[in-house]
Amino acid sequence: MLCYFRGLYTVHLTLELPFKEGMSSSSSSALETEIFQYIDLHQSDFIKDLKEWVAVESDSVQPVLRKEVMRMMALAASKLEALGATVNSVNLGSHQLPDGQHLPLPPVILGELGKDPQNPTVCFYGHVDVQPARREDGWKTDPYTLTEIDGNLYGRGSTDNKGPVLAWINAVETFRALKLAIPVNFKFIIEGMEEAGSLGLEKLLEEEKQCFFSDVDFIVISDNLWLSKKKPALTYGTRGNACFFVEVEGGDKDLHSGTFGGIIHEPLMDLVALLDSLVDPTGHIQIPGIYDSVAALTEEERKLYESIEYDIEEHKNNSGVKKFLYSSKEEILLHLWCYPSLSIHGIEGAFHEPGIKTVIPAKVIGKFSIRQVPYMDLSVVKQQVEEHLKNVFSKRNSPNKLKVSMPLGAKPWVADVNDPLYKAARRAIKTVFGEDPDFIRDGSTIPIARLFQSITQKRVIMFPIGAADAGEHSQNEKISRHNYIEGTKVFAAFFLEISKLRGQLHETSSPETNN
Amino acid sequence: MLCYFRGLYTVHLTLELPFKEGMSSSSSSALETEIFQYIDLHQSDFIKDLKEWVAVESDSVQPVLRKEVMRMMALAASKLEALGATVNSVNLGSHQLPDGQHLPLPPVILGELGKDPQNPTVCFYGHVDVQPARREDGWKTDPYTLTEIDGNLYGRGSTDNKGPVLAWINAVETFRALKLAIPVNFKFIIEGMEEAGSLGLEKLLEEEKQCFFSDVDFIVISDNLWLSKKKPALTYGTRGNACFFVEVEGGDKDLHSGTFGGIIHEPLMDLVALLDSLVDPTGHIQIPGIYDSVAALTEEERKLYESIEYDIEEHKNNSGVKKFLYSSKEEILLHLWCYPSLSIHGIEGAFHEPGIKTVIPAKVIGKFSIRQVPYMDLSVVKQQVEEHLKNVFSKRNSPNKLKVSMPLGAKPWVADVNDPLYKAARRAIKTVFGEDPDFIRDGSTIPIARLFQSITQKRVIMFPIGAADAGEHSQNEKISRHNYIEGTKVFAAFFLEISKLRGQLHETSSPETNN
Repeated sequence: MLCYFRGLYTVHLTLELPFKEGMSSSSSSALETEIFQYIDLHQSDFIKDLKEWVAVESDSVQPVLRKEVMRMMALAASKLEALGATVNSVNLGSHQLPDGQHLPLPPVILGELGKDPQNPTVCFYGHVDVQPARREDGWKTDPYTLTEIDGNLYGRGSTDNKGPVLAWINAVETFRALKLAIPVNFKFIIEGMEEAGSLGLEKLLEEEKQCFFSDVDFIVISDNLWLSKKKPALTYGTRGNACFFVEVEGGDKDLHSGTFGGIIHEPLMDLVALLDSLVDPTGHIQIPGIYDSVAALTEEERKLYESIEYDIEEHKNNSGVKKFLYSSKEEILLHLWCYPSLSIHGIEGAFHEPGIKTVIPAKVIGKFSIRQVPYMDLSVVKQQVEEHLKNVFSKRNSPNKLKVSMPLGAKPWVADVNDPLYKAARRAIKTVFGEDPDFIRDGSTIPIARLFQSITQKRVIMFPIGAADAGEHSQNEKISRHNYIEGTKVFAAFFLEISKLRGQLHETSSPETNN
Repeated sequence: MLCYFRGLYTVHLTLELPFKEGMSSSSSSALETEIFQYIDLHQSDFIKDLKEWVAVESDSVQPVLRKEVMRMMALAASKLEALGATVNSVNLGSHQLPDGQHLPLPPVILGELGKDPQNPTVCFYGHVDVQPARREDGWKTDPYTLTEIDGNLYGRGSTDNKGPVLAWINAVETFRALKLAIPVNFKFIIEGMEEAGSLGLEKLLEEEKQCFFSDVDFIVISDNLWLSKKKPALTYGTRGNACFFVEVEGGDKDLHSGTFGGIIHEPLMDLVALLDSLVDPTGHIQIPGIYDSVAALTEEERKLYESIEYDIEEHKNNSGVKKFLYSSKEEILLHLWCYPSLSIHGIEGAFHEPGIKTVIPAKVIGKFSIRQVPYMDLSVVKQQVEEHLKNVFSKRNSPNKLKVSMPLGAKPWVADVNDPLYKAARRAIKTVFGEDPDFIRDGSTIPIARLFQSITQKRVIMFPIGAADAGEHSQNEKISRHNYIEGTKVFAAFFLEISKLRGQLHETSSPETNN
């Protein structure tokens, strides 16, 4: 097992910041004021830094831009070094493209700042690569020139994820600039392949779990969004994703519907019947047993829903959907977060082009997926799906061959909102934004939280600073000046809060359950 | 209205062949013997002609080969002129390719030979363009070098349709060479765009129906195959084809199954339910009323089925299908020829590639078609399909938009096997092959028969000479020497038979019914 930091422990620079009075809980208000004032006064510097980072076209999707990703990794490493952190850029080797070409993977940056065993150690994960963006895709401004319009900072990566990474760094920088000691040890893990599937990351985490992560108390990820445009949020769960292929094969070649229509069991007819058996028109999944293990909603969680800021009409308008299956906020959020859903994505092997082709396809593969929730077990879900499809198929007396597989299964993730970590984040938010955050989940699957939790066995918090309308992955991605600057403050306030958690972080049980 | 032959009527060469004794029905046997002997003796010449035609790569599908189609049309025109026919190569102008390029259309050859108003006038339709073929597609021989192996003549177009066109010409040529008068007037319509959709043909038929076709008694098409490898057949019907698009539209953009799965009515779910409502697992169409107008099977037609040579096992093996919906020959043929069938071809707009994409498609279009039979009316079928789909959809309470359309509707075609024309062809087959033909239909749609019948209002006979294993459109297309030479004889025998029909051909009613 490689252990990149083994050698570094003996040579890293020890932080020797003066410990100021005023770090106690009772007087944190004055300290906060000082910190927040500094952040407000240095807004332009922080935005200048973000502009510099956004200017690097660190698109990890397009191979031709890999050198820009490399340049971005070097920039990020320098930034951490300027903080005083020890930085190790771990070479992950190369990967092969579908055309056979080998491309170097960007390094993963492992950084650390502070090593006092008395202090809690927080590890921040972020990525500095971006999705592709071109002006002609419909951007109103050059995507790689951070441009402020009406208080919004437009640019690719402004919110996903360069802005939040810099906000965290800015917060640490503020403590340094003010010569405030921080009774927190920092670790950083910054990657450059997130938008291309985090290639190599999982292997690195496995290799580092006993080394770099051994003294980490928890991991902070700030790579998602609030549910609202205005109200802050903390994310404590994501759904899993079990993807299924259901293949029906007739003969070995496509047939002419004139010469065979009416005398054979068409594979696509079988498949359509199988797919039609999955969900009823009300959205209820018809697979027997599928809801059996779904965690019951607690009264405590139900209460969380009441105060959540979520505009159904706006969600409808943004998506172009005319009517949801449910009319109340609570029902909609429950069905996105706490209940499984099943979506059909398409069919491979059938005619899919415009126009007409009167073919009877020989082999067709239906693609659907189930977003599963705690405590649905992936292997049980797989078995339930298989049994159900085999049962429906057997009633058709079809001579065709049925094959069901689950090529991808990602588990759901859920955290305990009563964990001191979440409470600390909540207090920081209340301090900076003046209101409690929404405690939200995400209906989609964010493998990174689950990945960190599963491998490192550390607790994870998803702590977004971007608003619902930030346009991640879309044209005109932005972070508002407000969210960027208040986000910097909220991270700083969070450092103060977690510094108070000494001793509490080791008290709770391991975060790893079967989900 | 253009009328290409108007002027030619005054200048065409009158055929002045000596009328030999021995044309009466009682002595046709000796005459036939003479004719058949000639054909047997000149096999090599006929094959040489076919070799010359096959050598022209008259592929109408690939624009780059259009000049070869043009060259082929000129060859065919010379061949007819050598028979003594008056030939008019009608210029059809040009057509535009998807890339904007304009390509000249090959001319359609209209030829005539003999104009005695006392004689029946038979018009032969054929095409001399071919499907694409390349050695590397899996041909055992060069597709454009006619090659005889074990009595089979391999080459592109050997059976589709250059061989049958030449067989007809050979038969006429035999009468000329033997200086036998033929009490039949011939017309020829030869095109070069059949494999590319017969562009321009329909318009030409409309223009010529009162001119070139005015004195035609019937039209012979020899562009399909027997049902058996050995037993000759006459084709008296084809199914129609009503193609449907069923579109379900949700919003205006595809959505993420994590963020919307479980709270919206997915358009693809609606579509799958609609498609699943069309046919039950036994192959029975579930659209109310769809079978109402299907012509009942007469006792006479049922009897035709008993003697038909059709090998279920071979059909299964050739198609790779393990089991048909029916086990008896009669049931299978009935469901291919006399009953409508419904096939689902695919879905446009959904995810269709290999791999996984967890998308909820915004707009999906299901494609299916109904092969309809006499006397199903296209507009009624369309209405029944629409009503059924709307009914199923309304029960789902979906807010999505449903749109049903029928972008293509081709009518079925059926002829009367008791028509003197079919009887004449049957006698010719009995004379040459020593057995009665199978009277067969085709489950697929052959628009050309229907097109000629609808526009010209003349009776049409489909008179194939190629065997079931000829491999039309496939690799290693062939016509056997036997089929080519006996096919030439059967056409010659047919001329003698129809010469006896003087007076009978005008007695039957118009061939145009609602189907």
